Amino acid sequence: MPQRERKKISERELISWIRGRGRSGGELLEIGPGDDAALLRLPSRRLVATIDTIAEGVDFFLDETTPEQVGRKALAANLSDLAAMGARPLFCLVSVALREGLGRDFARGLYRGVEKLAEKYDCAVAGGDVTGWEGGLVLTIAAAGTPAAKRALTRSGARPGEALLVTGRLGGSILGKHFTFTPRIEEAAWLAENLPVGAMIDISDGLGVDAGHVAAESRVRLSIDAAKVPVSRPARRLAERTGKSPLEHAVSDGEDFELLFTLPEPEAARCIEQRPFRTRITRIGRVEEGEGVELRLADGTTRRIEREGYEHLG
Amino acid sequence: MPQRERKKISERELISWIRGRGRSGGELLEIGPGDDAALLRLPSRRLVATIDTIAEGVDFFLDETTPEQVGRKALAANLSDLAAMGARPLFCLVSVALREGLGRDFARGLYRGVEKLAEKYDCAVAGGDVTGWEGGLVLTIAAAGTPAAKRALTRSGARPGEALLVTGRLGGSILGKHFTFTPRIEEAAWLAENLPVGAMIDISDGLGVDAGHVAAESRVRLSIDAAKVPVSRPARRLAERTGKSPLEHAVSDGEDFELLFTLPEPEAARCIEQRPFRTRITRIGRVEEGEGVELRLADGTTRRIEREGYEHLG
Repeated sequence: MPQRERKKISERELISWIRGRGRSGGELLEIGPGDDAALLRLPSRRLVATIDTIAEGVDFFLDETTPEQVGRKALAANLSDLAAMGARPLFCLVSVALREGLGRDFARGLYRGVEKLAEKYDCAVAGGDVTGWEGGLVLTIAAAGTPAAKRALTRSGARPGEALLVTGRLGGSILGKHFTFTPRIEEAAWLAENLPVGAMIDISDGLGVDAGHVAAESRVRLSIDAAKVPVSRPARRLAERTGKSPLEHAVSDGEDFELLFTLPEPEAARCIEQRPFRTRITRIGRVEEGEGVELRLADGTTRRIEREGYEHLG
Repeated sequence: MPQRERKKISERELISWIRGRGRSGGELLEIGPGDDAALLRLPSRRLVATIDTIAEGVDFFLDETTPEQVGRKALAANLSDLAAMGARPLFCLVSVALREGLGRDFARGLYRGVEKLAEKYDCAVAGGDVTGWEGGLVLTIAAAGTPAAKRALTRSGARPGEALLVTGRLGGSILGKHFTFTPRIEEAAWLAENLPVGAMIDISDGLGVDAGHVAAESRVRLSIDAAKVPVSRPARRLAERTGKSPLEHAVSDGEDFELLFTLPEPEAARCIEQRPFRTRITRIGRVEEGEGVELRLADGTTRRIEREGYEHLG
């Protein structure tokens, strides 16, 4: 009978290495990585928490990326979720399932990718876990933060009459931005602290799909003006190859990790005029009574955006 | 060029199903699963947090287990880590990478396994994430709790002169207990609240290896009396097949998920005499000055226990 014990590949070794890096969580981490769990002293009793997994062959290909990029992406996607709630990061926990052949340097590279971004956002890496297995690389990060304002932002707060806005430019993330994007922590925190944001979400599944989430949770219709959608340069480059239009890429491509949010019209206008931060803000449409998402085209017709992008189980 | 967008297999569908189950986190969860992150109102600013991954072919085999068992095991291992810190669970976050062919019922089964155990320990399932991919099943849970007593318990608190104790019986977990074990939350909380526990750890890698962790972190030697080690019935059954001794199984087998802890001798004696809870407590040795772990055999000789059980990365 085979002994099916868990193989913890050098978890301890990796933890020793992590500890040896001499970074601490400051006031936050009373007990850091290396015990059975971390002990934290939070600045507040209100906590925003999320978890996200990225997997080889879906979110990255090992022959095209460095382990640092993979680690960075996993944390950045989590931070983007915290941003969408109007929260600033406090700490994260990292868990990796990796093929034993990938080696210690690879595992360290992954961790360094996480750590470098974590430092930038004052996010303590409070714990980690490494499991060796025969399968592909799966990296899961749980991240927690604290609301920047009294109120956390949600997908369900959009009200008819509000303007619909987006940060940055959209589409073609697959050409590189999905590894290099900046989670919109500062922008979201500023908005949460200074303006009566209705709803907010980060665009991970694509503008159309994520607008659909806001519409469904807020029980409203989102009407997007096609001519206003800020189409990225990569979306245009990609369109030359795919035969789709740049707009289609901007509406359908996933992993933009920009913020989609609503504001009362006067605040939206002032916010765009005053430019409170360097990241571009564009008003792309409005919130209406009804349901679903519609795209208003230049010729005056509208196209309903279905919740494409979801695969269905079994 | 292939479009390498992330495939979120019915995450939304699964989340709808989760929400529809009508369970809530009570006072704790202000915003539950379904938004970009959960929002919690914690009972205290002190948080104990951990993360753990279980993977197909390492921690379970799909042809031998139900999805419920897999889900239960993943959470139970996390709760055991919280127990080892003397913490009671508050909430968990669940992330699954699974082959698309496994189907919706499988994903729901996994979740039900998590949920059923979570309810038993008042642990809110605050969020979840499902990623479809071509590889095997990887289930990661992050769990957080709050220290039962003022002080959290650690691996580093053992002092020479203390007694070394263990809950339950050890070895042969592979024959079934690794799926059915009870995380020692209540026992650990009672001990943390009532006695001057020195160090505590949960036995996940095996008595010998985990005693080694305590010895290293506490900078002491742990001396284990072989005759006192509570050998489980499965360890004896397993020994008939493997040619190892039952004691070897009790010392080396992983995934017992019992507590290994230290107490001053008088408290240890009283605790064993008074039996504060039904779970068996056995004094198996003592803490000495020095380093490492030694096993004192019946013939008076001692055997040093090496940190076997760890595989090293390439």
